[in-house]
Amino acid sequence: MTNQRLFASIITIGDELLIGQTIDTNSAWMAQELNKIGVWVKRRVAVGDTREDIWQALDEESRESKIILITGGLGPTADDITKPLLCDYFGGKMIVNQEVLDHVTNIFLKLNRPIIERNMKQAQVPDVCTVLMNKRGTAPGMLFTKEGCLFISMPGVPHEMKGLMTDEVLPLLKQNYKMPFILHRTLLTAGAGESFLAERIKDWEEALPAHIKLAYLPNYGMVKLRLTSHGADGAALEHELDTLFLALQEQVKDIMITNEDLPLEKALGDLLVKRGKSMATAESCSGGYIAHLVTSIAGSSIYFKGTVVAYSYDAKETILGVNHQTLETKGAVSEETITEMFNGLMNVTTADYGIATSGIMGPGGGTEDKPVGIVWVAVGSREKMVAKRLYFRHDRLKNIELTATNAMMMLFQFIKAEPV
Amino acid sequence: MTNQRLFASIITIGDELLIGQTIDTNSAWMAQELNKIGVWVKRRVAVGDTREDIWQALDEESRESKIILITGGLGPTADDITKPLLCDYFGGKMIVNQEVLDHVTNIFLKLNRPIIERNMKQAQVPDVCTVLMNKRGTAPGMLFTKEGCLFISMPGVPHEMKGLMTDEVLPLLKQNYKMPFILHRTLLTAGAGESFLAERIKDWEEALPAHIKLAYLPNYGMVKLRLTSHGADGAALEHELDTLFLALQEQVKDIMITNEDLPLEKALGDLLVKRGKSMATAESCSGGYIAHLVTSIAGSSIYFKGTVVAYSYDAKETILGVNHQTLETKGAVSEETITEMFNGLMNVTTADYGIATSGIMGPGGGTEDKPVGIVWVAVGSREKMVAKRLYFRHDRLKNIELTATNAMMMLFQFIKAEPV
Repeated sequence: MTNQRLFASIITIGDELLIGQTIDTNSAWMAQELNKIGVWVKRRVAVGDTREDIWQALDEESRESKIILITGGLGPTADDITKPLLCDYFGGKMIVNQEVLDHVTNIFLKLNRPIIERNMKQAQVPDVCTVLMNKRGTAPGMLFTKEGCLFISMPGVPHEMKGLMTDEVLPLLKQNYKMPFILHRTLLTAGAGESFLAERIKDWEEALPAHIKLAYLPNYGMVKLRLTSHGADGAALEHELDTLFLALQEQVKDIMITNEDLPLEKALGDLLVKRGKSMATAESCSGGYIAHLVTSIAGSSIYFKGTVVAYSYDAKETILGVNHQTLETKGAVSEETITEMFNGLMNVTTADYGIATSGIMGPGGGTEDKPVGIVWVAVGSREKMVAKRLYFRHDRLKNIELTATNAMMMLFQFIKAEPV
Repeated sequence: MTNQRLFASIITIGDELLIGQTIDTNSAWMAQELNKIGVWVKRRVAVGDTREDIWQALDEESRESKIILITGGLGPTADDITKPLLCDYFGGKMIVNQEVLDHVTNIFLKLNRPIIERNMKQAQVPDVCTVLMNKRGTAPGMLFTKEGCLFISMPGVPHEMKGLMTDEVLPLLKQNYKMPFILHRTLLTAGAGESFLAERIKDWEEALPAHIKLAYLPNYGMVKLRLTSHGADGAALEHELDTLFLALQEQVKDIMITNEDLPLEKALGDLLVKRGKSMATAESCSGGYIAHLVTSIAGSSIYFKGTVVAYSYDAKETILGVNHQTLETKGAVSEETITEMFNGLMNVTTADYGIATSGIMGPGGGTEDKPVGIVWVAVGSREKMVAKRLYFRHDRLKNIELTATNAMMMLFQFIKAEPV
């Protein structure tokens, strides 16, 4: 057992990363998962589909870290040079792996599609690697060892990489290395800024022992607070961290959404399930994004009735029954329209609670008195509705995301305040 | 004038990148901009707020590239070590830069906020650097030269980094280096797998000259094909690449969505605008995700009427007029229900075209004859409807994304086949 950090490097391969066509979201996810089990990512390197550059990266990173995770460059097409390179690098020769071959054949059989030479190539692997089965695709993960370093190569498709990490890589790392204990406790607050929050919990934060770190993770008007502790004695750490975490929750209880590491839409869903209630949305400017977030949660069909995305005047009128007169005189982005949209939603669905949104997301459509970023949000029940005017100053997509988050936050707080 | 590529490395600094707290979007943007002016990003490296790691990255990257762009680590807080390190690395000492001091003072005056010690520190820079003024923030950009390499340090805040790149860095690079030309041509295909596509264009691909590269970028049942060419003579390159690109388009024309570097939802929107038509969606299993994708495109209110997310039986019946009988006898995931949903959508909206979806996204809800991943999609106009049964085998979110992509693809192809 050692207290020294176990270092990893992440190498991502692909020209698309170097010309800026793809934003690398894999590395952040991998870093999070590695962190949770006590592996510290020391460096992340992106290189192109160039043999010498990949080779050099393997050399360099194995001098820095014990664990080298490689993603990308494993598809069946001609621009993929990673697999033969890995074969050479680790001094092997290519052989056919029967298990992968069966797996690939099976996938194509089930898809009822012809399997061609190129697909079969996925089953070829260096004879010096251990194959890690990729349940979600045809390109297998591969594990190599060299001079005390562990190299693991995975496809770059996020979904496949995540499956391999979860099913194979993380369990394998936990088994093979003695990790220091790393514990996290996370809570989500809404409606208070980072600096305001920092000021409020200042004394508590300053009294934290050196081996416990607090991170502020601000996102869309919410701030996640994450406590991280590491050391050798798991049970003692856990007890200490839970005590501190309880004290933190006490200090932020009026603005806390959940004391678990959950997204807002999951916390909202859990609250609805607990209360045995349902919801629906009438979305104009958020364009169905709230519905998407809510329905991305497994089991949401229990509490989610549906949505009307009323993007045009006629959809607002025909489906939600908004008065033509209101739209003409007050405009789509107004307290009057949002109220009628909300009422219309409660009429066409059987939901207990509702959300309505209408605003100008940009870049076009703004006027002097209603600039881009102005949004009306209404939330409520059949008995009561609360409407609020919000103002965001970002680009279109960010404005949509902020509208959705703020609307869900408002509904969450509305339901919380309801008598049980 | 040389034909050799001008290489750049991007170094991003910050622990938040290594624990996965922040997704690095800066590097992709920088790479795109550099690429446009003919600078090739060779490597991207992320290191933490650790002196030795940053120092080493500077050493290593200056062996790889002539231009080293550094972002992050320049804020006013105590944990920032980048600036003093750069000062040591280039053998300078810290001095106060009057122009930056005036600029910082001015910002705080305008904000009507007290300026504290910490903020004044922003005006301190190494005496061996050239200051690049940051109009959007307090941390200045800094330019250093060493052994024929150019080092440029910028703050990590995306908005400030982009301002500095646009106003200072890119013009400076264009002035100081003779660039080779880098050109890209991208097209998007749908419905054919990567390996099938590779097989089809094999002869054409093998005949490509050495300075032109083809990349396959598969995503959700679509494959992007990207041609990249580089060299000295811009006009000749352009002509050559366009000729090859035309030949490629000819070979994939039956499955090509667009010959521009656009997402499917934008290509679909452009097609609707061109035809002067509109669309709407009735979504069950896709839960509003199609609506979100379509409305994420600026200007979509011109052609997007709205959506009914009919997640529950009652929403399907009340809003879309699906027969209770149909739901009871055939189930929500059936050709009969999808047909009634589609017809209902055309009734409640004025859209010219529509999409309807109903399926089981998982992880729960599957049965023997309707397992998780079964989806019915209908697309069409007021005259004609096409319904298709699809089957995906992924996790919930991916199944939702695949449903959305395939549905948009189907509608795109439906509209394409319509008489103009």
